[in-house]
Amino acid sequence: MTQNDNARHDMNHDTQPQPCTAPLAATLDVLRAALGDDAVRVGEQIGERAMTDWTRHDPTRPAALLLPRTTDEVSRALAICHAAHQPVVPQGGMTGLAGGAIARTTDIALSLERLNGVEEIDAASATLTVRAGTTLQSAQEAAAEAGFELALDLGARGSCQIGGNLATNAGGNRVIQSGTARDQVLGLEVVLANGDVLSSLGKMVKNNTGYDLKHWFIGSEGTLGVITRAVLRLHPQRAARHTALVALDGYDAAVNLLRRLSTRFGNDIGAFEIMWPDFYDFGVKLTGTRSPFDGAYPLYALIEHASFDSSDDGERFAEALSGALEEGAIRDAVIAQSVADARALWAIRECTAEFPVRLDAINFDVSLPISVIGDFVERCRAALDERWPGNESYFFGHIGDSNLHVTVDGHSIPGVDHHAVYAFVYEMLGPLHGSVSAEHGIGLLKREFLPISRSPAELAAMRAIKHALDPHGILNPGKLF
Amino acid sequence: MTQNDNARHDMNHDTQPQPCTAPLAATLDVLRAALGDDAVRVGEQIGERAMTDWTRHDPTRPAALLLPRTTDEVSRALAICHAAHQPVVPQGGMTGLAGGAIARTTDIALSLERLNGVEEIDAASATLTVRAGTTLQSAQEAAAEAGFELALDLGARGSCQIGGNLATNAGGNRVIQSGTARDQVLGLEVVLANGDVLSSLGKMVKNNTGYDLKHWFIGSEGTLGVITRAVLRLHPQRAARHTALVALDGYDAAVNLLRRLSTRFGNDIGAFEIMWPDFYDFGVKLTGTRSPFDGAYPLYALIEHASFDSSDDGERFAEALSGALEEGAIRDAVIAQSVADARALWAIRECTAEFPVRLDAINFDVSLPISVIGDFVERCRAALDERWPGNESYFFGHIGDSNLHVTVDGHSIPGVDHHAVYAFVYEMLGPLHGSVSAEHGIGLLKREFLPISRSPAELAAMRAIKHALDPHGILNPGKLF
Repeated sequence: MTQNDNARHDMNHDTQPQPCTAPLAATLDVLRAALGDDAVRVGEQIGERAMTDWTRHDPTRPAALLLPRTTDEVSRALAICHAAHQPVVPQGGMTGLAGGAIARTTDIALSLERLNGVEEIDAASATLTVRAGTTLQSAQEAAAEAGFELALDLGARGSCQIGGNLATNAGGNRVIQSGTARDQVLGLEVVLANGDVLSSLGKMVKNNTGYDLKHWFIGSEGTLGVITRAVLRLHPQRAARHTALVALDGYDAAVNLLRRLSTRFGNDIGAFEIMWPDFYDFGVKLTGTRSPFDGAYPLYALIEHASFDSSDDGERFAEALSGALEEGAIRDAVIAQSVADARALWAIRECTAEFPVRLDAINFDVSLPISVIGDFVERCRAALDERWPGNESYFFGHIGDSNLHVTVDGHSIPGVDHHAVYAFVYEMLGPLHGSVSAEHGIGLLKREFLPISRSPAELAAMRAIKHALDPHGILNPGKLF
Repeated sequence: MTQNDNARHDMNHDTQPQPCTAPLAATLDVLRAALGDDAVRVGEQIGERAMTDWTRHDPTRPAALLLPRTTDEVSRALAICHAAHQPVVPQGGMTGLAGGAIARTTDIALSLERLNGVEEIDAASATLTVRAGTTLQSAQEAAAEAGFELALDLGARGSCQIGGNLATNAGGNRVIQSGTARDQVLGLEVVLANGDVLSSLGKMVKNNTGYDLKHWFIGSEGTLGVITRAVLRLHPQRAARHTALVALDGYDAAVNLLRRLSTRFGNDIGAFEIMWPDFYDFGVKLTGTRSPFDGAYPLYALIEHASFDSSDDGERFAEALSGALEEGAIRDAVIAQSVADARALWAIRECTAEFPVRLDAINFDVSLPISVIGDFVERCRAALDERWPGNESYFFGHIGDSNLHVTVDGHSIPGVDHHAVYAFVYEMLGPLHGSVSAEHGIGLLKREFLPISRSPAELAAMRAIKHALDPHGILNPGKLF
């Protein structure tokens, strides 16, 4: 239809930044005048941290590093770069796994590290107001001191920053219970490319006054605005934690157990981590422990029950597992009797910390409907075996969150091109409407694979929005699209 | 700063629709050719329902009513209207309380009623795929038949439709436990103004592949796209419900009780409804019952505990309230011993159903940080008494959701201009960063008050996005902005 074609054309904006209208040196002079010399670093003054992230991408020194101290300074910096058509890459704790905060040599990096600290805890409203450069761990500690829990937790907690967590909609360890980073946000302050400050720092759960602006920026990987402050929701502390390792007959049994436990305990089920035998056996070997089970099983689940009532919730959880065992719904189960027991069980799952050292790791972080993950694992393993016989691959995931991780060891396929493995697995997701990134984001590394998960119409809409909010394309160019 | 001013100017798009380029009769001919005569109604063929909503706004007959049967037909209809610059008003069950779906005589109304039915329940993924025109109650019943619960419930359940619920981000009875309509959505299909279909019907909890498009449309009140299908999250059914009415010393005691119960029961607390004495006494009178308490108290809370385990959760809840009573944290409490008891307690809170008959109701649906609601009620009542001595006003709300309702009875202020009362109360919210709409939306009725809750920069960003996604301004013109 002709109208439709014309309309599509309307939205086909170019999201690449237009050429700088001002030479870099002149822009830096204006920035120094606005922010002070100390806040504008170049050359050797720029530390290692600004040059790469946890992807260990080749370190690149940006043209300059800005270190604003306030929202107003972020606003002034962006207004200047917007006027000069100067690309800007927002940076947090640099713990990303998709290259989303890596700057090119012609980009200016903008670090939020000086804009840090918890501003307020409002106990009656159960909210925490925090600056973007605050580490996740500091925010967690402030919440705990006030008797609350911040329901966001990642391995990178000591380094990652709240701004980056929100810009990437971080997932982590508690999604099944409390959702992703997005679900923790009540209010957000963002500086747009042109320097306009959108300060929507409300503490309200309900607020239907026009478009819910915070959701535009959460997960947009720094391409639509720079997050400067946030109001986060606080949760009551969970007093009791109980951990179990369960042996299962297969994937369907795992899904049934998840539904069975959810129906009894709601979101007191705080973790439901699935490990296929390839992963489980490797984890046991790497941690130098021995499996608590005598036999080998088709699937293992590490389950955490985290509740508010410490009196008898442990018994209830144990009872539910005994019941499942008696009915044949599970094959075996061990329940940790101490914190040390629980740590030993978690160590198997957390052997992934050793992956970068022990493996030439080709990592996947995909998501699929929970109902198809089991089939996908079988088909994916068979396809890998056919294409690269002898490959060593490990399957595991947070199935309650529809999130599957696969790690292929490049060492087991001598001379393999990593890119070929990425393309091979990602292509299998397309027909299943799977996602090439469950939690790590697209950044630089998965950009070419984004069309597997997003239709041309969706990409056109994203570009139209990008163009509307950042008409000169200065914010994090080359990422996402 | 000059750059900044220029940038602001960039974003200052006109969101009013441009004049139609084609005469209405010609557009209707093209629509009839595309959708069939039966799907394009005019004049007397248009029923009452398309003419007004639950605001009882003066009934207005739209220029035409479209009744598409499929997403593809919605797409073709919008592409035609886009080409003709013809305004279109999406309509669901017409139960809105802000006039958001009321069409003018020159608008074409687009009803989703034929696009109805539950398409799929995926038990393993715990998802329900549903068409926009399905009533909330049908969707709830389908979920219940499959052993799940749809965690969205409103008084209008029998008439309101899922599409409208999502377009307005409906709140309702279970927000404290499970969030608003937004929180139930995993995937969404939307038709843009130009007819492009964004089909993001994923079932995944985690999916970080570019901008999360569903959040752009949820709560946008039909101004950015027409929602045609959705994938909703299903929850396990809660087996046990216990209801209590509690007498309190004041607002601080209510907040403390809410925190105390949340810390013990998490989100098993399914309702926490606060009633000030003006409301409570009126509710008791209207329902013709008598208060279960001997004395009068400064505040009342109706609390529901809804959990998965029916064995002893009732006792735990009763224990928690006895403990609070012994410690002096509450003044008195009654716990419903039967379903009939529970209904009688709820009847007091639900006396609002009588408001349209008994009162000349001037209704407010505002939100404020939980920590300031108590003060606001006192100040608001004092200000109303000073301005309109003898006014009869009723204060109540879902404080766990930061949502306060106020109803002023126009009968008690002879000759009062409703608009003056609206302006008077809304103006009080501004300095507290309150919201003029917690759950009902802005629509037509609150449009002039939106700037109380949103800054010029926020409104400019909303307009920029509106222009990017609907460049001819055909979707629900005159609403929100």
